[in-house]
Amino acid sequence: MTRLDAQMAFLTESDRLKSITRATTLCDASRHENSAEHSWHLALYALTLSEYAPQGVSIDRVIRMLLLHDLVEIDAGDAPIYAQTEESKADMERAEQAAADRIFGLLPDDQMAALRDLWQEFEAAETPDAIFAKSLDRFQPPNQNLAAGGGSWTDYNVTFDKLDARVGQPIRRGAPALWSWIVPKIRAVMG
Amino acid sequence: MTRLDAQMAFLTESDRLKSITRATTLCDASRHENSAEHSWHLALYALTLSEYAPQGVSIDRVIRMLLLHDLVEIDAGDAPIYAQTEESKADMERAEQAAADRIFGLLPDDQMAALRDLWQEFEAAETPDAIFAKSLDRFQPPNQNLAAGGGSWTDYNVTFDKLDARVGQPIRRGAPALWSWIVPKIRAVMG
Repeated sequence: MTRLDAQMAFLTESDRLKSITRATTLCDASRHENSAEHSWHLALYALTLSEYAPQGVSIDRVIRMLLLHDLVEIDAGDAPIYAQTEESKADMERAEQAAADRIFGLLPDDQMAALRDLWQEFEAAETPDAIFAKSLDRFQPPNQNLAAGGGSWTDYNVTFDKLDARVGQPIRRGAPALWSWIVPKIRAVMG
Repeated sequence: MTRLDAQMAFLTESDRLKSITRATTLCDASRHENSAEHSWHLALYALTLSEYAPQGVSIDRVIRMLLLHDLVEIDAGDAPIYAQTEESKADMERAEQAAADRIFGLLPDDQMAALRDLWQEFEAAETPDAIFAKSLDRFQPPNQNLAAGGGSWTDYNVTFDKLDARVGQPIRRGAPALWSWIVPKIRAVMG
């Protein structure tokens, strides 16, 4: 197997992310979105909203992270944020680590290490780039729900307090201006 | 309307790219892919296959181009490459320019100019970054078709000569190593 064979095996395997369904719908509520198109949308969020990132954040690194951030769902599935418990979260983290081993493991060793590290950095959400990337991952679904007139908020009976804990906290941490913009819109429909 | 209102209007409008269907299917042939998930896949191609770009190509600029390259299809639709004629191509270019005016026009002026220029650079395919981006846009569908056992090749009765002219030429121009890798695989199924 050549180096390019391995890279193409990874890219063909990645195609399966287009079949992983998320809790969030499209803005027109016509169907649920999948994790591949969600990843594209987040990368476009990063490109468009770069001025709301704290100084020193590399938007190109953020975009690379967002392109990769959901690949583990090919094996581990998507865990709707409003359905998570502490126990299910720990199980999911184990499943995602195994998925990362397998999926990034399709790549040549140097790329496996580089891309897996970038994914791990996103997951840990400790560096400025990862904190901003994570805030966008939390900011996009409420916008979809607002446009769709409910979406996953309705499906999971989400209250403002629950939303604030799961979504508000990471958005405020990484992109406070985006939280200030959206919170009155959420309050208007959720009270 | 604030600056962020305009940026969010653009990002919400962009969601419609998830409903634009392409001629190419997923690798498992379960359905046609849409232009949003295709754009994500191409950005991942750029990230993974960066070493096959000519020296001097900025992969981060290529990724930005690929994230944007199909947005005009929200208004203009996807034109399957094997169905194009000179006349339909000219009509499509007019429709895409009007689409670019409207869609990038949702953004604040400075961003509208920057993102529209990046899209126009991709379309013109004259700079090294755009030539490499375009070669990836031509290289991904044959891989999908090979995995799916036919796909758009079957639907459009594509011969090797037609494929070579529409797809082979731009891949050889931007990423000759990728063409050398795929051509025996295509020959094996197409003769």
